[in-house]
Amino acid sequence: MIRRHPQIDGQGRLRHLLSIDGLPKAMIERVLDTASAFLDVSDRTVKKLPLLRGRSVFNLFFENSTRTRTTFEIAAQRLSADVFNLNISASSASKGESLLDTIDNLAAMNADLFVVRHAQSGAPFLIAQHLDQLGKDVHVINAGDGRHEHPTQALLDAYTIRHFKKNFTGLRIALVGDILHSRVARSNIHALTTLGVPDVRAVGPATLLPGGLESMGVRVFHDMREGLRDVDVVIMLRLQNERMRGALLPSAQEYFKHYGLTPEKLAYAAPDAIVMHPGPMNRGVEIDSAVADGPQAVILSQVTFGIAVRMAVLGMIAA
Amino acid sequence: MIRRHPQIDGQGRLRHLLSIDGLPKAMIERVLDTASAFLDVSDRTVKKLPLLRGRSVFNLFFENSTRTRTTFEIAAQRLSADVFNLNISASSASKGESLLDTIDNLAAMNADLFVVRHAQSGAPFLIAQHLDQLGKDVHVINAGDGRHEHPTQALLDAYTIRHFKKNFTGLRIALVGDILHSRVARSNIHALTTLGVPDVRAVGPATLLPGGLESMGVRVFHDMREGLRDVDVVIMLRLQNERMRGALLPSAQEYFKHYGLTPEKLAYAAPDAIVMHPGPMNRGVEIDSAVADGPQAVILSQVTFGIAVRMAVLGMIAA
Amino acid sequence: MIRRHPQIDGQGRLRHLLSIDGLPKAMIERVLDTASAFLDVSDRTVKKLPLLRGRSVFNLFFENSTRTRTTFEIAAQRLSADVFNLNISASSASKGESLLDTIDNLAAMNADLFVVRHAQSGAPFLIAQHLDQLGKDVHVINAGDGRHEHPTQALLDAYTIRHFKKNFTGLRIALVGDILHSRVARSNIHALTTLGVPDVRAVGPATLLPGGLESMGVRVFHDMREGLRDVDVVIMLRLQNERMRGALLPSAQEYFKHYGLTPEKLAYAAPDAIVMHPGPMNRGVEIDSAVADGPQAVILSQVTFGIAVRMAVLGMIAA
Repeated sequence: MIRRHPQIDGQGRLRHLLSIDGLPKAMIERVLDTASAFLDVSDRTVKKLPLLRGRSVFNLFFENSTRTRTTFEIAAQRLSADVFNLNISASSASKGESLLDTIDNLAAMNADLFVVRHAQSGAPFLIAQHLDQLGKDVHVINAGDGRHEHPTQALLDAYTIRHFKKNFTGLRIALVGDILHSRVARSNIHALTTLGVPDVRAVGPATLLPGGLESMGVRVFHDMREGLRDVDVVIMLRLQNERMRGALLPSAQEYFKHYGLTPEKLAYAAPDAIVMHPGPMNRGVEIDSAVADGPQAVILSQVTFGIAVRMAVLGMIAA
Repeated sequence: MIRRHPQIDGQGRLRHLLSIDGLPKAMIERVLDTASAFLDVSDRTVKKLPLLRGRSVFNLFFENSTRTRTTFEIAAQRLSADVFNLNISASSASKGESLLDTIDNLAAMNADLFVVRHAQSGAPFLIAQHLDQLGKDVHVINAGDGRHEHPTQALLDAYTIRHFKKNFTGLRIALVGDILHSRVARSNIHALTTLGVPDVRAVGPATLLPGGLESMGVRVFHDMREGLRDVDVVIMLRLQNERMRGALLPSAQEYFKHYGLTPEKLAYAAPDAIVMHPGPMNRGVEIDSAVADGPQAVILSQVTFGIAVRMAVLGMIAA
Repeated sequence: MIRRHPQIDGQGRLRHLLSIDGLPKAMIERVLDTASAFLDVSDRTVKKLPLLRGRSVFNLFFENSTRTRTTFEIAAQRLSADVFNLNISASSASKGESLLDTIDNLAAMNADLFVVRHAQSGAPFLIAQHLDQLGKDVHVINAGDGRHEHPTQALLDAYTIRHFKKNFTGLRIALVGDILHSRVARSNIHALTTLGVPDVRAVGPATLLPGGLESMGVRVFHDMREGLRDVDVVIMLRLQNERMRGALLPSAQEYFKHYGLTPEKLAYAAPDAIVMHPGPMNRGVEIDSAVADGPQAVILSQVTFGIAVRMAVLGMIAA
């Protein structure tokens, strides 16, 4: 059980971004609106705003992820922050220093913001709580913690959906694949239900769906064609390779047959349905190349919007 | 067979730098002239021009090379670009993502320029072609691909030769060593013949010389003293350690005896001949310390000119 | 035996920072005074001074240390330098290039300053001497060399002591633990005796104390309670894990019993004694959490002052 920690300060401002769970609808919308204003910065020749000049942003990646780290690095640099990348698994952690001692040390270097990726669910909460108890004015963004949450991914997904579908209140959205192990799925379910999506569906084999989905307002489907029927948005999830090595799945081929998104299965969705994926894709496992490269895929738009959304979060928290 | 891809756009500007092969003489000379103008920037206290401010340059090293990556990072920073270093072998590649999916993702983050090092010959061509087909305004610089080309190395070598010898049209130049596996040699042969050097020589054992050199306008020598006779420039090549472990060479000692550049062998060259090496040197294998540290070596000038040449290429392509 | 090399130029300015041994008292004090002026920069929203704008600072870490590298990176960035991180063990060193060839190459890229961490005692001296012999205007800061010195750590420790105790001339200071293998201890002993501390003590088991301490003006204690009696400052040293695996120590538990700093042992010191540690701490090995987190610990102040001290050294040397 992960303890919740306040993300919003006494003045109603975003202080940390730790989870979508508990984030009010108005705050999510404020992030999306702010991102919209930042989107054109990355389109300019001089992709640079002075908003965070002289601010020290630390990318603390206790779990390796070049791609996510790079997106935060780009977002912070485009706001003129000083960015420091620390791959902690290779450093103090191996010298036996505790997580909070590492945090205390970096905070003592006058950090302004930590972007934290950690294999342990709840680690960013622990860090934020610790800093707040010390009265430190240092902010924390969760860049993915264990199987728990990946809030900026859910926000960029929400941005993408709003961009293509205008509003949330009439939508049918299906999340397909390994919901059980996916922090992306968990954050997305919280975001979409908060934003008022009336029909959120989870599609996958029983071994990859967690219990309790119905109590979160999610309809469960084991048959993909049924689950995709008439949806406006399909969010495919990455199948971690290690799942296929374990006992959860028979094989990649078998998985693709039942839950891989092919044009044939996509035809069950609404004709103007969009297809999303958090990347990196396993082509031929959870998604067919004909779909990934097809006209309904908005996967690369997600990436572009992701930079703007991370700029928005950094700017709202640290400016 | 590596497919060629246009490096020059409709307005005659350098769009990508993928290979020296196919680059017109006038374009090579324009790079050298531009580098000349940038040379003094690195000599100032404030080594900084605003030319690429707010531009996003990605160092995509699919093959590790701290030195080459650093030279591009320095060049880009001195032009005020934002530089992002991605060591891809340790990242998405290991998650099974395809090369072009990685490129699509980074392009979607509004990259301006990719500096690509890859173990596969032709990878930078493939990337540039893909980006152009998508209509993306993203530029590609080949920082070494397999055994194919290393164009910025050839350009800095040409710069060095022009600096010390003033022009190319009366020169005798010998490349010595492992021509077969050397992308540096391949790029240099194209550059020197294009620039009008009348006598380009390849010197090495038969096992380390490729076929077809004569058709590229190169004279082949197996005896080093003969090959160096009266040359104005000696370009030594690095002997990869793995060559000596294989069946191609008997031993480092034996190699040094026949093809190591000693003062005695260098005496066969013109008295004012210069000695070049792309680094890092294997002292006592392909070059004797007496030569490496001697008055004819211009190896460190190559390094200094290399920063200016890379600034020139970055500036011409992305400014 | 490590050869000394001049750190101060003909005009009395700091040219390199290689060791505290040989550094005059007035120069140490000038560093502390300069750091004092830089301290508030890191407290501002815009943590940035233009002092080293356009200067190229290279972090050359031949031995991995994310924490120390990061402190120098932060200090250099807050002075607006361009910082290039080179983890050399993973690079040219593995290609067989010599240390001085690597240095020559980087100097040829118009480096202004090298921050060097190296497992070999004396490596930074060798580098500085080599650069000076070549007449290069490149500066060297020793960020820890073998068992020899770690001068910026000693300077930040001196800063911390001066901050809390105002002056050095009436103090009793104990260094506790593995003095034998500690470059921090060696640099601290030189700094504290130079600054006029009348009573410097070394406390530890005979197997972890070097010979010759008395000739450096240090009193030796094997009983920790005796060694801590009435001291004003306790500097705990990190116990490297490898010591416990070897024959030098029976076990971590045994070590903690005799030399771990507990509240009970700390009670032998002066009531207002401060407790310092260079980090990262081994809680429960050399220090008890009740002390590490207690009111007398100034361990995180050391970290904060460390940034200011490194800014001071960078600024004095390279501005």
